[in-house]
Amino acid sequence: MNQLRWDPVLREWVAYATHRQDRTFLPPPEYCPLCPTKSGGFPTEVPRESYEIAVFENKFPSFSRNASEPDEPGTALAPTAQGRGMCEVVLYSDDHEATLARMPERRIRHLIEVWVDRYRELGALEEVAYVFIFENKGEAIGVSLHHPHGQIYGYPFVPPRPEKKLEAARHHREERGACLHCDLLAEEHADGRRILYKGDHFTTFVPFYARWPYEAHMYARRCVPSMVDLTGAEKEDLARAFKRLLSGYEALFAFSLPYIMAMYQAPTDGGEYAGVAHFHVEFCPPNRTAEKLKYLAGSEVGAGAFIVDALPETTAATLREAMERATAGSAEVGHT
Amino acid sequence: MNQLRWDPVLREWVAYATHRQDRTFLPPPEYCPLCPTKSGGFPTEVPRESYEIAVFENKFPSFSRNASEPDEPGTALAPTAQGRGMCEVVLYSDDHEATLARMPERRIRHLIEVWVDRYRELGALEEVAYVFIFENKGEAIGVSLHHPHGQIYGYPFVPPRPEKKLEAARHHREERGACLHCDLLAEEHADGRRILYKGDHFTTFVPFYARWPYEAHMYARRCVPSMVDLTGAEKEDLARAFKRLLSGYEALFAFSLPYIMAMYQAPTDGGEYAGVAHFHVEFCPPNRTAEKLKYLAGSEVGAGAFIVDALPETTAATLREAMERATAGSAEVGHT
Repeated sequence: MNQLRWDPVLREWVAYATHRQDRTFLPPPEYCPLCPTKSGGFPTEVPRESYEIAVFENKFPSFSRNASEPDEPGTALAPTAQGRGMCEVVLYSDDHEATLARMPERRIRHLIEVWVDRYRELGALEEVAYVFIFENKGEAIGVSLHHPHGQIYGYPFVPPRPEKKLEAARHHREERGACLHCDLLAEEHADGRRILYKGDHFTTFVPFYARWPYEAHMYARRCVPSMVDLTGAEKEDLARAFKRLLSGYEALFAFSLPYIMAMYQAPTDGGEYAGVAHFHVEFCPPNRTAEKLKYLAGSEVGAGAFIVDALPETTAATLREAMERATAGSAEVGHT
Repeated sequence: MNQLRWDPVLREWVAYATHRQDRTFLPPPEYCPLCPTKSGGFPTEVPRESYEIAVFENKFPSFSRNASEPDEPGTALAPTAQGRGMCEVVLYSDDHEATLARMPERRIRHLIEVWVDRYRELGALEEVAYVFIFENKGEAIGVSLHHPHGQIYGYPFVPPRPEKKLEAARHHREERGACLHCDLLAEEHADGRRILYKGDHFTTFVPFYARWPYEAHMYARRCVPSMVDLTGAEKEDLARAFKRLLSGYEALFAFSLPYIMAMYQAPTDGGEYAGVAHFHVEFCPPNRTAEKLKYLAGSEVGAGAFIVDALPETTAATLREAMERATAGSAEVGHT
């Protein structure tokens, strides 16, 4: 059952997927459905003895290509619609214990090609308006499977948060004749205090207005609407940017930091926002400290206003230090 | 340090309050700062041996009346501002173990008078644009103190979520010459399947487009902009509506359910939205089941799109049953 219902108060679609109640929840490692199928073992989602990267359709999809007409007609104010779309799972490795942070850049570089391919393919589907590539990592984020993986949702609408960003970017372009993200990146470069990584083609920084203490944004320096438009050299640098940031996240508190990773690209519906997108990636780790999490509570959920107890300048310095520690560590390992 | 920074991508203020890093975090019950000060004991926030309801200024405020000029000037795209405003704590009882659900309606009725008083007083402050009355309940929501209490934030701006609602209500009024919330309430009454409580003056229901399985909205039936405008009889019924819903929440899984409670009223800045508000209260419990929580992850946080695995019609029936069980239980207790 995939159904959309319109919330006329917040003017947003809410998606219902009741079969998701039965989704696999934190199985013991030997029953991980994302591991390769061992000979003689139980059949997992991947019918092979090993793999590098694998993509398959989510068995418990939030949106489905063959969603039927909703049985609830809805009302004049709150109509319903089919929950059409596509949900995929992207396995980063066949090693159950791996994390993206600990993989070689080469693997991340391959993963980028997979993301490009999926963005293109899902984006071409008639029912998909927006391709959203993301990763939920760690139990603090509520993952139901530990095996290293990300997800892709092909939404049948441009979701509220990307839409709000695109709207701001369009507004900025109309008013100033320039890209909002390019202009912001110039401001971050000029200030410098919150820069975490500056490669040849990508810059990672804690934004001046971060909502999570260790939030990081990764911006393509060239104004490209999606990953499809990246050159080989740009993809190399994106892989390096990922590797550096994620290594820093692992070094920060000496454990594999939970986070939400989200990629923002041009909608694929050929609509009004096609010309204003600037490809960027956001990482939101929930940790305020090694022990304490930032919760979304009354102010964030009820009022939509974030209250933050750490200044971005401070957390950027701490995170930059952790990234340097991680790089020095891996260089040492490389030398021995 | 109370500072606002403007996020030009999402066009929202983000509030920084670094002193909140040091706030008291889940102290042992004997060191609860919200309990009354026992004679010979350590001095708590309330210098009295007992109290019914108490209100005081939050020691770790997200907004402060005397916030100084931000030391960060910000930039053209991302300006800063003083984090001016007011944050209060409302203690519901001097009994550390109490919950609002288990208090007599009379106490809730008194609490409503306190809320009315605080809305009026904080709303009159020059620096406060929006008075937001809320409660974060339970460790799953991230509370740092267990003592039964709610909070009030006097924001120096109309926060994003209330603003979005007010914008929709204004739009509806312009287009149809009627109140959006009154019209939605009429639709819910006509359908009936999601109604949890229908008193003389308030209706509680699981909205057709609920984002949380056991989400409940409590609407004033008369179109009033704030609690200040409620009559005595309406306040009586609001107390009863609270008591019924919260008792149901305790009976649902046989433990005191965590939730975020949020009240939506007219802004107090005398601005454009003054005439469109319709007083209502929202409750968002994070539980999908007794053991499992709904997490806000990639789709919700990154894309702003909620994915729900339970249909509002089903959860409303379950919750209504729990409310009936709770009422029957308390009636039995009353008879013996």
